[in-house]
Amino acid sequence: MAIIESIPNVSEGRRPEVIARLAGALRDTPGVRLLDFSADASHNRSVFTLVGDAAALKNAILALYEVAVPEIDLATHSGEHPRVGAVDVVPFVPIEGATMNDCVALAKDVAATVADRFSIPVFLYEDAASTPARRNLEDIRRGEFEGLAEKLAAADWKPDFGPSAPHASAGASVIGARMPLIAYNINLNTDRVDVARKIAAAIRHSSGGLRFVKAMGVMIEDRRIAQVSMNLTNYQKTPIFRVFEMVKREAERYGVTILESEIVGLVPAAALMSSAEYYLQIEGFTPGTQVLENTLRR
Amino acid sequence: MAIIESIPNVSEGRRPEVIARLAGALRDTPGVRLLDFSADASHNRSVFTLVGDAAALKNAILALYEVAVPEIDLATHSGEHPRVGAVDVVPFVPIEGATMNDCVALAKDVAATVADRFSIPVFLYEDAASTPARRNLEDIRRGEFEGLAEKLAAADWKPDFGPSAPHASAGASVIGARMPLIAYNINLNTDRVDVARKIAAAIRHSSGGLRFVKAMGVMIEDRRIAQVSMNLTNYQKTPIFRVFEMVKREAERYGVTILESEIVGLVPAAALMSSAEYYLQIEGFTPGTQVLENTLRR
Repeated sequence: MAIIESIPNVSEGRRPEVIARLAGALRDTPGVRLLDFSADASHNRSVFTLVGDAAALKNAILALYEVAVPEIDLATHSGEHPRVGAVDVVPFVPIEGATMNDCVALAKDVAATVADRFSIPVFLYEDAASTPARRNLEDIRRGEFEGLAEKLAAADWKPDFGPSAPHASAGASVIGARMPLIAYNINLNTDRVDVARKIAAAIRHSSGGLRFVKAMGVMIEDRRIAQVSMNLTNYQKTPIFRVFEMVKREAERYGVTILESEIVGLVPAAALMSSAEYYLQIEGFTPGTQVLENTLRR
Repeated sequence: MAIIESIPNVSEGRRPEVIARLAGALRDTPGVRLLDFSADASHNRSVFTLVGDAAALKNAILALYEVAVPEIDLATHSGEHPRVGAVDVVPFVPIEGATMNDCVALAKDVAATVADRFSIPVFLYEDAASTPARRNLEDIRRGEFEGLAEKLAAADWKPDFGPSAPHASAGASVIGARMPLIAYNINLNTDRVDVARKIAAAIRHSSGGLRFVKAMGVMIEDRRIAQVSMNLTNYQKTPIFRVFEMVKREAERYGVTILESEIVGLVPAAALMSSAEYYLQIEGFTPGTQVLENTLRR
């Protein structure tokens, strides 16, 4: 069976009974497993992680809209996190036996159905984007719900599906397909946050570094250590070991060593396998047939 | 479901129709998957790899004996590989959701049933061994089928189950539980096989090295490179990265570097994960809840 992951972000992080109903809508959809969910009151936002095949995920996301659309009113919504809609962002991620193309097709199918059934304008993003200008979520979301009417009226921002005007209470949605995101932090053997910031600037894509790295330097106050905090947005093309080695080398420039690294949340097995292959110099290895657990599931 | 692996070794590698019936007996047992089998004519021996839960594996191994015992006569058997019985060795290996204790219990259960149903003496080995002197397969098998009657008559070698005399045609069996074995080779950037032999001697348990490493130095004739060829018998206690680093360091002593390494056949995912954690200095990582694929199968 092809397994796809979806991580819908919903603009409700304060009313426990609504959050419970949103989670229930996902969990009760046959063929879907809700792996995790968390709500943030200051962001006023909840994030759900679920897996299933394409058909089951489509049903689950539609069930989520059925709860979210009548309950959430963006006109009165406030929170720290940028958002354009009640169901703000819905990415689909290939996990096992599914390709990026499968996820793009699913994103378009769900987007068309959401636009049709709820009269919500939908933008496709990342690998499902219709133009390069719509790949980045930040660009689509700029102006937020409050600027949405004006944005949708511009020729450049005609939505990929649905009306060219915001849904009065549910705004718009951003639906797409992307690689799994890895939250990866490297702690430095120093309390100099300026070193962490310089390293972050050297390795991140936006300032000239690696293509699929987002990074910033932060201070871990309770331990008095500086951290390079990262999101790796495509572990196949920018693998963990290359990021680690580049941070290590940049740190040497300041006489700083790596204390430890940490993976926050989930990581695909292949992202760690490839690091083992790199450091152990393993040649001719085919995980699909040689990793015992993989052969059990063929 | 708890998944256990078994790798029965049968003393028949020349008659294709018998080998096919042996494989069929395993494959046709409900709840079992036969992942692989191979026959070697010069060894006159076949090796089967199957997985399933404890109950299904017991049925499969008994079905294997039902075919092997009437077909194979050790009194007329010849081959290069040492052997004491028709069904020579049956290890059980914990793979997923099963512990070593589960495999020891299964080994004892199968051993008792084999002894009772076929009147075959059975020795327990490795983690299922009743005494330290019976842990090593080589010690149990020393003297082979031809020396078995004399061996079984000695007080020290009373079998763990069954009669103290060989089965006339099927000899004896060695049944036990062990960790997955990893066949791991490191190719050196030299054609000096003496260097590979010295490194092998330094790292293997038998001559003072790491506890769960068997190693020898060999020449890869067609590439003119020396290789340290190894079996890692417990990747949890003697992890791959430690073996790799020790070989690398020993090679430096001779001005030699590592060209590449290779994993032959199957490897548990955890054996590679732990190497990634080591080199990336990952702290606080719990593969059971953080590796995406593992969360899908909880």
